Amino acid sequence: MLKNRSIVSIDDIGDNELDDIFKATDEMSNALKQGKVLKLLDGMVMATFFYEPSTRTRLSFESAMHRLGGSVISVSEAKSSSVSKGETLADTVRMAEGYADIIVIRHPMEGAAKLASRFSSKPIINAGDGSGQHPTQTILDLYTIKRELGEINGKEITIVGDLRYGRTVHSLLLALTKFDVSINLVSPEILKVPDHILSRLPKGIKMKVANDLDSVMEHTDVLYVTRIQKERFSDQTEYQSVIGSYSIDMEAVSKMKEDSIIMHPLPRVDEIAPDVDSSPKAAYFRQAGNGVPVRMALVSMILGGK
Amino acid sequence: MLKNRSIVSIDDIGDNELDDIFKATDEMSNALKQGKVLKLLDGMVMATFFYEPSTRTRLSFESAMHRLGGSVISVSEAKSSSVSKGETLADTVRMAEGYADIIVIRHPMEGAAKLASRFSSKPIINAGDGSGQHPTQTILDLYTIKRELGEINGKEITIVGDLRYGRTVHSLLLALTKFDVSINLVSPEILKVPDHILSRLPKGIKMKVANDLDSVMEHTDVLYVTRIQKERFSDQTEYQSVIGSYSIDMEAVSKMKEDSIIMHPLPRVDEIAPDVDSSPKAAYFRQAGNGVPVRMALVSMILGGK
Amino acid sequence: MLKNRSIVSIDDIGDNELDDIFKATDEMSNALKQGKVLKLLDGMVMATFFYEPSTRTRLSFESAMHRLGGSVISVSEAKSSSVSKGETLADTVRMAEGYADIIVIRHPMEGAAKLASRFSSKPIINAGDGSGQHPTQTILDLYTIKRELGEINGKEITIVGDLRYGRTVHSLLLALTKFDVSINLVSPEILKVPDHILSRLPKGIKMKVANDLDSVMEHTDVLYVTRIQKERFSDQTEYQSVIGSYSIDMEAVSKMKEDSIIMHPLPRVDEIAPDVDSSPKAAYFRQAGNGVPVRMALVSMILGGK
Repeated sequence: MLKNRSIVSIDDIGDNELDDIFKATDEMSNALKQGKVLKLLDGMVMATFFYEPSTRTRLSFESAMHRLGGSVISVSEAKSSSVSKGETLADTVRMAEGYADIIVIRHPMEGAAKLASRFSSKPIINAGDGSGQHPTQTILDLYTIKRELGEINGKEITIVGDLRYGRTVHSLLLALTKFDVSINLVSPEILKVPDHILSRLPKGIKMKVANDLDSVMEHTDVLYVTRIQKERFSDQTEYQSVIGSYSIDMEAVSKMKEDSIIMHPLPRVDEIAPDVDSSPKAAYFRQAGNGVPVRMALVSMILGGK
Repeated sequence: MLKNRSIVSIDDIGDNELDDIFKATDEMSNALKQGKVLKLLDGMVMATFFYEPSTRTRLSFESAMHRLGGSVISVSEAKSSSVSKGETLADTVRMAEGYADIIVIRHPMEGAAKLASRFSSKPIINAGDGSGQHPTQTILDLYTIKRELGEINGKEITIVGDLRYGRTVHSLLLALTKFDVSINLVSPEILKVPDHILSRLPKGIKMKVANDLDSVMEHTDVLYVTRIQKERFSDQTEYQSVIGSYSIDMEAVSKMKEDSIIMHPLPRVDEIAPDVDSSPKAAYFRQAGNGVPVRMALVSMILGGK
Repeated sequence: MLKNRSIVSIDDIGDNELDDIFKATDEMSNALKQGKVLKLLDGMVMATFFYEPSTRTRLSFESAMHRLGGSVISVSEAKSSSVSKGETLADTVRMAEGYADIIVIRHPMEGAAKLASRFSSKPIINAGDGSGQHPTQTILDLYTIKRELGEINGKEITIVGDLRYGRTVHSLLLALTKFDVSINLVSPEILKVPDHILSRLPKGIKMKVANDLDSVMEHTDVLYVTRIQKERFSDQTEYQSVIGSYSIDMEAVSKMKEDSIIMHPLPRVDEIAPDVDSSPKAAYFRQAGNGVPVRMALVSMILGGK
């Protein structure tokens, strides 16, 4: 069903499609564990265009493509590319569609992936567009919750940190409203979820805004921590005032429910203390590891190898 | 016949070899369209050394190698390479020949590829050397004319823009003199074809120098537009004075012959208005797309996989 | 025996393992010469993380992986990676182990590879850690001596140039003490082997420190020349005073024994004059070429494909 489709926003994924993606991800995950050599996309080429720093997302897409038997061509710096000669994104995309079967793009400008998809006859995957969306991160977040807790429905999910600039949070929020969950939003005043995201959420959802993490910690099933991104602040004194305000240490973790988990899209800086890593609740490295099988599932479904 | 040979200049390609390359390109193009998985260069490695910004050329070479079943190792920035430690190009090449079966090089210095080929036991492909040559671009330009118009002989070809610094133009001019064509050169005074190129053209060719695009537009079969390259100007006021002097818009296009085409080596900036893109005359994206099958043909002929 | 093991230091390689590596390298070298397509690591992925400039080491690892049928994902600049967002090396490694089967790391900080190996469930190969070690370079150095001269035991080896900051020298010295060799150390006073390396060498070894190259040239079997690395000096006048003090030209080479060889880890700057390249004694390009089969042997032994 995803065949030949672009994934620009989490809205591009239908509710019933998510289950198929999860099933395909389970299969990919098993194949990886068994060391199976897959040749589903033999002879196919992925182009990764990363106009913003990224390691995790780019490498997991590239690893996914290689694990499927395909190849990768890559631009990871705007200044060594033809963008530095003044080329428009539309022209870059029309070039890339001649070279690759699928195009993965990260761009500092919100809406860049949508624009790219309008000009491309090949499928585009949005790997992050400024403060916009990052839909494959959201899919792997949802997959991680389901895999760790068995279910997404019925869970209480607390999202903490930078809810204003964090595009992962925006995509995740929109996606969670399709499930029967309770959401707690915990952030400093200046880093609240922006109105243009709030206005897109359905009326009936169970959502609570709090300044205080302690009040929700005890009944939280999923604590989703985000990095307060230095590079999003124009005023660095503002940054200093909020950094560390919601740091998670073992004392905080000890208040959490038995089967609860801690997630983080990574990279982290000081939001989670290193000694939390050894807690079974720390799901963030498992979450990162899910990036490869999720992207294998998506890419193989889009390119019709599977 | 190209087996194990370097391609440093368009002169390295014999007149009768061009036909073989075009035939091989047609085959590669068909294989791509049919989604055939080629394994002609399975186990072989291409090294791409790009000491100047490039997306199009590098990615199309890398895509070509992957489509043939081969692998790629790449250096796309001088400063993260051993060149930053003071290594000579000769030493870099003698290293690379131990790592790869074919070496593609772009370098800011004219003559760099020729120098590299003198020190390498493995074939070198010149992917642009300063204001020198860019022979694979020329081959794909000739292939595009032939594919679009059926013939190169008998056509009137107008080359417009930066004829002084544009290495694509120099390679193309030299190559066109082997055909029975009429050539119009249209450029501002300060961007005329340099004497050292003019002196290499045979006496008898039909060539006209003009400052005025209008006078030749009506009988032109191929309008070859080039970017006026900002980075080639040391004086930026000089740049400002010429930029845009030969911009192509729909009004200009409406004066062109029925079966004529517009080409551009890309990236473009303001030379061609975006609304021209939808005209069937706009061949530049098809031209860019030809980059992969042309380079597949060349690389497979050189490495003897075909 | 190397299966699933990290190579952080040359000490990680047992004395009897070296012979197995050399045998495997001979096999790889022959396979390359015969143009055999190996599929030993089909479906496997290598991650190369190079946080310091490198061409030779990175490309030879990547070429080795491709020649074995595997794929590569790569970060070759710290500033376009998540390190620029403040991520720790430990977190980067725990990410990478989800994406790759083996991780090759070069880092400006001594001890970085050791740290990485503590956090990784996947094997780590140290490709240079600051002024620390570079064990795969040492293995290829030893392999080159053996291949060129038939034996390592019984040889007189003169190491000249920067013995203080050159990590290749430190790894090589430690490794040579396991053989019955005579070692001459020739360097300017300020670039002597540091005490922390000297203290790790066994008491009984035949080692001589000299300021004068002439006195040892005649009976040297292996002249190992190193680059005096500009980037290791904080004081550039100090650099100027030592550069060129031990440059090797044909006059110097003419004093060498019949079957002696000159080695250099490359890149070189002025340490060896270009006309020496044509001497049969000049083994440094052959040495560089050994980088690929040595790394093919190591990687295939670690990943158990062979």
